[in-house]
This record gives sequence, structure tokens and C-alpha cells, in this order.
Amino acid sequence: MTNTISATSTATVITPYELLEHWQGHRRLTRKMIEAFPDDKLFTFSIGGMRPFSELVMEFIDMAQPGMIGVQTGKWKKFGDGTTSVKPQTKEELLQRWDEVTEQINEVWPQISAERFREKDLAFGQWEGPVHWIIFYWIDNEIHHRGQGYVYLRSLGIEPPAFWDRG
Amino acid sequence: MTNTISATSTATVITPYELLEHWQGHRRLTRKMIEAFPDDKLFTFSIGGMRPFSELVMEFIDMAQPGMIGVQTGKWKKFGDGTTSVKPQTKEELLQRWDEVTEQINEVWPQISAERFREKDLAFGQWEGPVHWIIFYWIDNEIHHRGQGYVYLRSLGIEPPAFWDRG
Repeated sequence: MTNTISATSTATVITPYELLEHWQGHRRLTRKMIEAFPDDKLFTFSIGGMRPFSELVMEFIDMAQPGMIGVQTGKWKKFGDGTTSVKPQTKEELLQRWDEVTEQINEVWPQISAERFREKDLAFGQWEGPVHWIIFYWIDNEIHHRGQGYVYLRSLGIEPPAFWDRG
Repeated sequence: MTNTISATSTATVITPYELLEHWQGHRRLTRKMIEAFPDDKLFTFSIGGMRPFSELVMEFIDMAQPGMIGVQTGKWKKFGDGTTSVKPQTKEELLQRWDEVTEQINEVWPQISAERFREKDLAFGQWEGPVHWIIFYWIDNEIHHRGQGYVYLRSLGIEPPAFWDRG
């Protein structure tokens, strides 16, 4: 067998811009999910005592928005500090907030040094790991809770957007 | 700003073995989810006409098991071909099948060439993209459907394992 990999290989699996596209692709799908919810159900519907979908979306925003500043600068606030003071009250406001974060991520990304993804940091002063691990946690957390939103929509008799559709 | 990245940078965000650990970490959490389900509910419980959790787990297995052969060899069968012929009927059988796939992934991984992750391929003869994209699709699909399982468990009054616990 030729060219097999060792456990210490630093070969590139994905590049910085592929990670950006991976995340923004998922974020486009989450945006479609927000749109798919009826205006009221977005803020009220729940199963098994879990949070309404709007609350889950605010969690994604509260990780991504201050998180990108932490990734860029290495300076972190405590999780939740000052981020939820003005909570969107309507679907339109939530989508607007979502789009602001989309822009912010795109603006900050080119300012992250290539080495930064492999540096260790303490996200929000409490989660320790390499920066790539921190960012993947946010993405995976979004996929995870969005999956809950799929059950909410199905339970409401609404067809959710296709999981593979990230366009 | 020094060391900013360009869109064409091939800097390493994660290495082949970090991707393996990322996947197996998620798979450990999925295993805990299988264990958390009552034996019968694992195969029967559903919300909104969605599949029981056992069916979702079989989808993960049917992607990962033949998928790893495709990643390694570049040879793909059609999705679902011959993989579900012997479907586990009990939680114990499902966990055993799960553990076999865990071993298989660990065994195949070192035989994947470093360049392979960046090659384009046609997964299961129908999904085209770089191999890293194919593997992330399987991981994300697992996170997504596992998130549904969290709603099932909460709805049954059962506390699911913590999302961050991949140990």
C-alpha cells in the first residue's frame, strides 16, 4: 500500500475557505428552516419541554457573533454576555439578525491567519481546544439543534427543506 | 493585518486523523443515544411520521460501512445495495453492528492516502464532490438525525446524553 497516512500527518483535509463554505452552507439551510416556520410557532412551539426554534437560533447567533471576534482576536467574553440583550421578536427581525451574522463571518474570515485554526484557545473563557475544534463545535451544535427543528416542523405537518440543500 | 488568508490557501484546518477523531467522537455519542433508548421504543417510537431511531442508525451504518470501502478503493455500490439485508432486530444486535463499523473505520483509515481526501469522487455512484465533502456529509447527516433522536427521548421523558460528551 503506497501513500498511506500516519497519525501525525498534517496533510490538508479541508482548507480555511472550504470550512467557511461548509459553515455558510449549513447556515443557509438553517435560514430556510427559520423561513419554513409559521411566524408564531417559531417563537412558541415546543416538544418535550425543549426550547422553541427561535431560542435555538439565538444560541447559534450567540456563539457565532461574539465567537468570530474571539477567533479573530483571541479575546473572549463570557458566553451570553451582552449578546441577547435585544432579542428579535419577529421572524423578520430574526432573519435580519441572521443575515448580519452571515456578513460578519464573511468579513472576519479573511482576517484569520492560516495558523490560527490550529492554535489552542479557551473559547468564551471556558471551552479549551484548537480553534478548528471550536468552530466545528458551533457548526455541529447548529446541525444538532436544527435537526430538532425538523421534528417540530414535521409534527406541525410542514415539509422541512431538504437536508442536502445548502444553496 | 499580517498572515491573512486568501480564498485559495491550502493551509491545513484539520488533519486526516483529526477528522477520524471528529467522526468517531460523534459516533461514540450516537452509541450512547442508542443505549439511552428503551429496547422497544428504539424500533417503534416516532414523531410526525418520521422514522424510529433504529432506522436512522441503520442509515448511518449503510453510509459508513460501504462508504469506507468506496473512500478506500474508489469503487462504489449503489446506496443501500446489500447493506440492509440482515437488519438488527434488538438493541444488542444494533450495538454490535455499530461496533463492527467503528472497527472497520479505524482499520481502513490508515490505508487512505493523504491526497485522497481532496480527490473528487462520485459517492455511491450519485453524489459528486471531494472525498472530504463526502465524509463530512455522513458525519453531518448523523448529527442531524441524532438531533431528532434527542426530541424522541425528551418526548419519552428520558434525559439524553450531553451533546458535548464525545468520550
